[in-house]
Amino acid sequence: MRRKLFAATVMLMLAAASAAALHKRNRSLPQSEAKTIPERLGYPRDAKLLIVHADDLGVAHSVNRASIKALETGLVSSASIMIPCPWLPEIVAYARTHPEADLGLHLTLTSEWSSSRWGPVLGKERVPSLLDSSGYLYPSEREAAAHMDIPQAEAEIRAQIARAKALGIQPTHLDSHMGTLYQSKALFEMLVRVASENKLPFRLSQEWFTRSPFMRSQLGPGDVVLDRIISIEPTVAPEDWSRFYTEEIKNLRAGVTSMIVHLAFADEEMKGLTFGHPNWGAEWRQRDFDFVTSDAFRKLLKENNIKLITWREIGKLVGKTEH
Amino acid sequence: MRRKLFAATVMLMLAAASAAALHKRNRSLPQSEAKTIPERLGYPRDAKLLIVHADDLGVAHSVNRASIKALETGLVSSASIMIPCPWLPEIVAYARTHPEADLGLHLTLTSEWSSSRWGPVLGKERVPSLLDSSGYLYPSEREAAAHMDIPQAEAEIRAQIARAKALGIQPTHLDSHMGTLYQSKALFEMLVRVASENKLPFRLSQEWFTRSPFMRSQLGPGDVVLDRIISIEPTVAPEDWSRFYTEEIKNLRAGVTSMIVHLAFADEEMKGLTFGHPNWGAEWRQRDFDFVTSDAFRKLLKENNIKLITWREIGKLVGKTEH
Repeated sequence: MRRKLFAATVMLMLAAASAAALHKRNRSLPQSEAKTIPERLGYPRDAKLLIVHADDLGVAHSVNRASIKALETGLVSSASIMIPCPWLPEIVAYARTHPEADLGLHLTLTSEWSSSRWGPVLGKERVPSLLDSSGYLYPSEREAAAHMDIPQAEAEIRAQIARAKALGIQPTHLDSHMGTLYQSKALFEMLVRVASENKLPFRLSQEWFTRSPFMRSQLGPGDVVLDRIISIEPTVAPEDWSRFYTEEIKNLRAGVTSMIVHLAFADEEMKGLTFGHPNWGAEWRQRDFDFVTSDAFRKLLKENNIKLITWREIGKLVGKTEH
Repeated sequence: MRRKLFAATVMLMLAAASAAALHKRNRSLPQSEAKTIPERLGYPRDAKLLIVHADDLGVAHSVNRASIKALETGLVSSASIMIPCPWLPEIVAYARTHPEADLGLHLTLTSEWSSSRWGPVLGKERVPSLLDSSGYLYPSEREAAAHMDIPQAEAEIRAQIARAKALGIQPTHLDSHMGTLYQSKALFEMLVRVASENKLPFRLSQEWFTRSPFMRSQLGPGDVVLDRIISIEPTVAPEDWSRFYTEEIKNLRAGVTSMIVHLAFADEEMKGLTFGHPNWGAEWRQRDFDFVTSDAFRKLLKENNIKLITWREIGKLVGKTEH
């Protein structure tokens, strides 16, 4: 009897060790080699799927107007909202009347402009490590990451998600304003954990693993990683805007790509907000708006057999490991 | 020796009682009958002094642009800032580079629009009685006054003043956004006390004593009360705007009057902010801007021998009882 019990215990231990090893392997290989995301979503293996995504909703009326207008053309398929920002109520009203809109949260730990700034959702007394000397969130992702106490950042991120839900927004995904939550292993681990608890997909691309090798080890088997992210950079001259996006679209590979755009009109509000910052400034955002709402873009997508999808679709795969 | 001491004590007591009676009389008559404010400021007794005052700085870029432009014409002599609002940093930068500008604080306990809203300076956990169900300050002065815990409101007001000073603003006066601090005796008492501690004058007009008899009894001998306030109301039709102000200027009486204006441009930002609210809306503020920056207004002031003054001048009288 004792011998049998011993043997059973050993077998159980071996089984547990084997399961742990399997789990570990899965953690380092979150995307199955067997099935691609398009296949898991019911598309052909070589489908070219694209999420055209507008960032920064809630920052300004100009951003809201341009982003809503672009969403309604059908050529922008998704967007994310900055909960601490002043024009949040306008987006909340839109989200409530447009439950089909694919709206996520652009988790916010920075406040980068100089004329208009914002603080955290939590009281300043609760999250002092997130604030610069003027009492607003730090202007850059590097300063924010360097000063923040991780539990305070996590409390703030959770408060932003809770506030969104309390206001009637059911976010379809998470991402991070200015990439702050991708600045360190500890921050990224927190993003993955909070996203997982909320059963939400989050912005992450296979390409990023080269730049930030720590990322892969943080993932679980139920996390979904996009294949590629297209994001225009300040190295592209204004006159090359359309050419840059056109080339990217023409060369789009099979899999899921997200094209990140920043939409607004180059009006007085936006010029005032981004004064002195041509990068991601008013004219930049007007150029992005002009391109993604153009007939040329619509035609390009059609000619290149590109299917627009949403984060809501990606979300269906979260937590699922069957391939 | 004891008799002499007794007599001296009685005399001291009588003197003290007499001083107390005098103080009491002064408290009920804070403005001396003997000297008018113009005289106390060194102007003739019949001088017509006017503070042209722009409210709501910090609310929006449109408000800031219009108000700064109007201040720089010299036809608007004073303005007040809303510390909890998103475009505060733009006004802070202006205040720092224009120390001569007459800028006070428009103490803020309400957030009245629907597309863009703001919360308190203090953490929401500290001042829950100031917040509506969506976590912003109440939209109306009546709701705010009805729900607020007075010590929480006082803490918030003090935090707004402290934040202004920490950011480098030396306020010349205090007033109250949407008149919230004039809604009850308890709120008004708090305004008077906080203003007195900060040695600042605050918006108050002799005319208001009729409407709110509780006000007079709250004042001390060092408080300064303006003679009249001009403020356009929704009863004036848009086409009568200029006529209304012109008549007010032509009929201006001797003493100190403050003309309260709300300046902005009727641009996309302001139309979005005030959407659905023609009263104090984008067009209203454009009309105010057009009038106070017009040559007609400049000519009217000159023809009617009206001298523009600032709250900084009024501030010199605060705490002084010698007439």
